[in-house]
Amino acid sequence: MSQVSVRDDEVDIVIAAIEPDLTSFLEEWRAIFSRFHLIIIKDPDVKGELKIPDGFNYDTYTKADIQQIIGPSNAATFSGYSCRYFGYLLSKKKYIISIDDDCIPAKDTKGIQVDAIAQHINNLSTPATPFFFNTLYDPFCKGADFVRGYPFSLRSGVSCALSCGLWLNLADLDAPTQALKPELRNTRYVDAVLTVPARAMMPLSGINIAFDRELVGPALLPSFKLAKEGKFRWETVEDVWTGMCVKVVCDHLGYGVKTGLPYVWRKERGDAIESLKKEWEGVKLMEEVVPFFQSMKLTPAAKTAEDCVIEIAAAVKEQLGRIDPVFTCAADSMVEWVQLWKTVKTRT
Amino acid sequence: MSQVSVRDDEVDIVIAAIEPDLTSFLEEWRAIFSRFHLIIIKDPDVKGELKIPDGFNYDTYTKADIQQIIGPSNAATFSGYSCRYFGYLLSKKKYIISIDDDCIPAKDTKGIQVDAIAQHINNLSTPATPFFFNTLYDPFCKGADFVRGYPFSLRSGVSCALSCGLWLNLADLDAPTQALKPELRNTRYVDAVLTVPARAMMPLSGINIAFDRELVGPALLPSFKLAKEGKFRWETVEDVWTGMCVKVVCDHLGYGVKTGLPYVWRKERGDAIESLKKEWEGVKLMEEVVPFFQSMKLTPAAKTAEDCVIEIAAAVKEQLGRIDPVFTCAADSMVEWVQLWKTVKTRT
Repeated sequence: MSQVSVRDDEVDIVIAAIEPDLTSFLEEWRAIFSRFHLIIIKDPDVKGELKIPDGFNYDTYTKADIQQIIGPSNAATFSGYSCRYFGYLLSKKKYIISIDDDCIPAKDTKGIQVDAIAQHINNLSTPATPFFFNTLYDPFCKGADFVRGYPFSLRSGVSCALSCGLWLNLADLDAPTQALKPELRNTRYVDAVLTVPARAMMPLSGINIAFDRELVGPALLPSFKLAKEGKFRWETVEDVWTGMCVKVVCDHLGYGVKTGLPYVWRKERGDAIESLKKEWEGVKLMEEVVPFFQSMKLTPAAKTAEDCVIEIAAAVKEQLGRIDPVFTCAADSMVEWVQLWKTVKTRT
Repeated sequence: MSQVSVRDDEVDIVIAAIEPDLTSFLEEWRAIFSRFHLIIIKDPDVKGELKIPDGFNYDTYTKADIQQIIGPSNAATFSGYSCRYFGYLLSKKKYIISIDDDCIPAKDTKGIQVDAIAQHINNLSTPATPFFFNTLYDPFCKGADFVRGYPFSLRSGVSCALSCGLWLNLADLDAPTQALKPELRNTRYVDAVLTVPARAMMPLSGINIAFDRELVGPALLPSFKLAKEGKFRWETVEDVWTGMCVKVVCDHLGYGVKTGLPYVWRKERGDAIESLKKEWEGVKLMEEVVPFFQSMKLTPAAKTAEDCVIEIAAAVKEQLGRIDPVFTCAADSMVEWVQLWKTVKTRT
């Protein structure tokens, strides 16, 4: 199967520094990350100097940079996990990969360290197949092919715009599940990549993702903030919201979304029981959010990711705004984000 | 997660005897099959006495039985791989499992023999989740759960009506692919089960499947015969057609379809180059078949699998019949099958 070759300088790795000391994180990833350019965004709420070991090619951005570029009023949009979106905004590369700073490289079933960057690039640079499900998973993986009955007209596939990686050890559960099953660990290494079928929605996790910025960059956006959002993944749903935006955009523009490999190893962080109160709002709101995105239909006038986001924002305001003010804020943030994206693109 | 316990006498294993001597096949499966009742159907085109080793609990059916029960005019419906459908018709059990007679038990990545029957029963007796994709695969597998963002209202899932197992060694490719890549073997053991999302179509393979007969039995039907159909899987598409019928029925009635584990090990059989001429017709017809099933919408009047099949048959005749007479034959076979199903059900 054909594979586009990707140059190292077509990739930015964006890291959200939720803790200022990235030494142990970057040392774990040194062999994998050091060939690539890193964009490191310091969570504007976090105190202390960033610590970054030698030997990496990187740019760092802090609260002052955020305020300078987008003005002080919008700076809160980029707090916590969302600070990475500032990196998405500034990147000029074709591919962006983002991995949480509490993750280290995983090992496969043979004990060999997984190169998450190579796998994400492979996912994005080979076609996706959203219009018919291949039971033997991604037919563009080495040693794989299309199963009998797969229409030949669909075998060239479509561009893959988003690659969703997974997590070993601490799975990406919500606070209630994590609190109910504190001992639960994900130990199952599933050696597969698959395309999520068109019109099927899935819960994107921002922990370990990659995307084609040129195709869908404007749809990877910070917009869905809970009122009492915390600093742990299980207290947030911003990435889940974003994922459904991107999926709707991909379905509309004819791009694919892959999920599966690569895995990263997630270390422990936080106290799920303590988080329960905060998370509940997110859990409750998903009951409205999922049916909304499942039934979302964009018009033929939406021809770019920017257009799509603007249409989705209008529908959010109209259909979800009356349920909870958090949705009106999200819709406004989406519109502001697209304006910001266009401004930054024009300026640079 | 809750799991319904299934009694051994709720299961029929249906075997299509494409070769009369089942000795080595059944010896390979003895440890796994011997607790269950087998229904063995001898391909009516095949000569020679059935050979079945001692120690199995089984009933056999031959051409004479088929002719006696359904009349000589329809007996051709049950030739080749399709003879298994006669077993589906006669079974009175809740679950039916069917495995091709050129398959033996597979081994997992640790070298442990896979109990394909236990895995199929597990797939069918735990809920499916077709309405939102869980990125950590089947949440009802041991050690798994729903990922953050998965709506709680969807976590109880729906009944799983069909379990599609996979194949190691010789993958289920079509003749052109097999002929182009004669060395290609499937060696990737993917340790996962997943629900195929609602409205996504996939190419079912009849090699290794299980289903809930009470829910969707009438939709597992022999109807799509190619004019020059051969005796090798890659020369047929009857199961691919059937799979899309069942998927449409499941989507309409609110049941789920799972795919993934269990694997079986497929041994070599046949000459793909020789088959190319026969297969091409199937490959060509899939270009019409897939869009047809993807756009198929059943009416609220279709409340049972039988009703659904009748509606699909009418649409096949109307929309596909003008393209190729093979579709008109398929539509007629579907209607006859439902009548047969009802007759046999009333009689027993």
